[in-house]
Amino acid sequence: MLRARVIGNVWATKRLPEVPNGAFLEVEVEGGSSRMIAFDALGSGPGEAVLVATGSVAAAWFPGPHPPIDALIIGSIDEQPGS
Amino acid sequence: MLRARVIGNVWATKRLPEVPNGAFLEVEVEGGSSRMIAFDALGSGPGEAVLVATGSVAAAWFPGPHPPIDALIIGSIDEQPGS
Amino acid sequence: MLRARVIGNVWATKRLPEVPNGAFLEVEVEGGSSRMIAFDALGSGPGEAVLVATGSVAAAWFPGPHPPIDALIIGSIDEQPGS
Amino acid sequence: MLRARVIGNVWATKRLPEVPNGAFLEVEVEGGSSRMIAFDALGSGPGEAVLVATGSVAAAWFPGPHPPIDALIIGSIDEQPGS
Amino acid sequence: MLRARVIGNVWATKRLPEVPNGAFLEVEVEGGSSRMIAFDALGSGPGEAVLVATGSVAAAWFPGPHPPIDALIIGSIDEQPGS
Repeated sequence: MLRARVIGNVWATKRLPEVPNGAFLEVEVEGGSSRMIAFDALGSGPGEAVLVATGSVAAAWFPGPHPPIDALIIGSIDEQPGS
Repeated sequence: MLRARVIGNVWATKRLPEVPNGAFLEVEVEGGSSRMIAFDALGSGPGEAVLVATGSVAAAWFPGPHPPIDALIIGSIDEQPGS
Repeated sequence: MLRARVIGNVWATKRLPEVPNGAFLEVEVEGGSSRMIAFDALGSGPGEAVLVATGSVAAAWFPGPHPPIDALIIGSIDEQPGS
Repeated sequence: MLRARVIGNVWATKRLPEVPNGAFLEVEVEGGSSRMIAFDALGSGPGEAVLVATGSVAAAWFPGPHPPIDALIIGSIDEQPGS
Repeated sequence: MLRARVIGNVWATKRLPEVPNGAFLEVEVEGGSSRMIAFDALGSGPGEAVLVATGSVAAAWFPGPHPPIDALIIGSIDEQPGS
């Protein structure tokens, strides 16, 4: 998994019908070298540190037919006060 | 998913018979560091900002036998006027 | 597989229910160029050199339904004294 | 998919028996930053611009048991005269 | 596939029980930019140029339940004398 920080939402009104409803969040991967868009079912918000799983395991998380989703926020990283 | 911008079409007259008919678009990944070719079923055009899913989830989107396609445009990113 | 060194634990109290209980370790990939978070079932500790498998093979290691886990520590690398 | 240019053939007399017979071509990925070896069933030649699909979708293209092949040339890119 | 050169063996006495017995070789990917550990069933030795397949196709090569292995040496590259 990658440690990343949520930057904000991305909206895509025009999309394939198989794309699930829900939040698509832009995140910056630890180190600041790259960004990606991940599906979020945890209500994550801007600035939050999250764990992102990528690849086919993200699609396999969804019940029923697997949607074309390759990045999923699986948890919110606990941060110590002051860190 | 990756945020990318459509550059233009790529044509491949000589191809494996299992490659589906449709548009193959060259896109530049956010940050400008790399380019890839993605299958498009949304009628995306040059300059459009899109969401690209990569890996086996792209092939699994196609009904029937999965074609050898590893990148799929799943949505068009809504852009604010002036952005 | 990647050769990596364990940096420390990562905790995620808020998480998807399908995420398995167990240790999530932050590791630094050989060469120091990148970090990732891997699931650990071997009791690995900080400073330990480990082998990390990534992608869907990590999820497939788990019995039952495959969780959204894309990195797994599969072994601890034997290190010569003094190395 | 990646846009790449064929550099030449690679031969591997000693190989796993599950590796299919056919051409293994070394290609340079667009931008010149990296090279890979892809299986080719289209008779591609040195200097040709090709589309390469990577990952498990390459293995899934083969009929029968999937061989340990993770890169496949799926098409030859049409190039305009003078380009 | 990646073209790589064998550097040496890696030993992991403490490992998951699903990890197969056999050789784990550290290889340097062509260009010298990165290293990885690949499973080897061909008796490859230090200095040898090899073809490495990565991802789930490596695990799928093994008969029976797929082990958590994401890199496999599939062949030894023939090298011309003097090259």
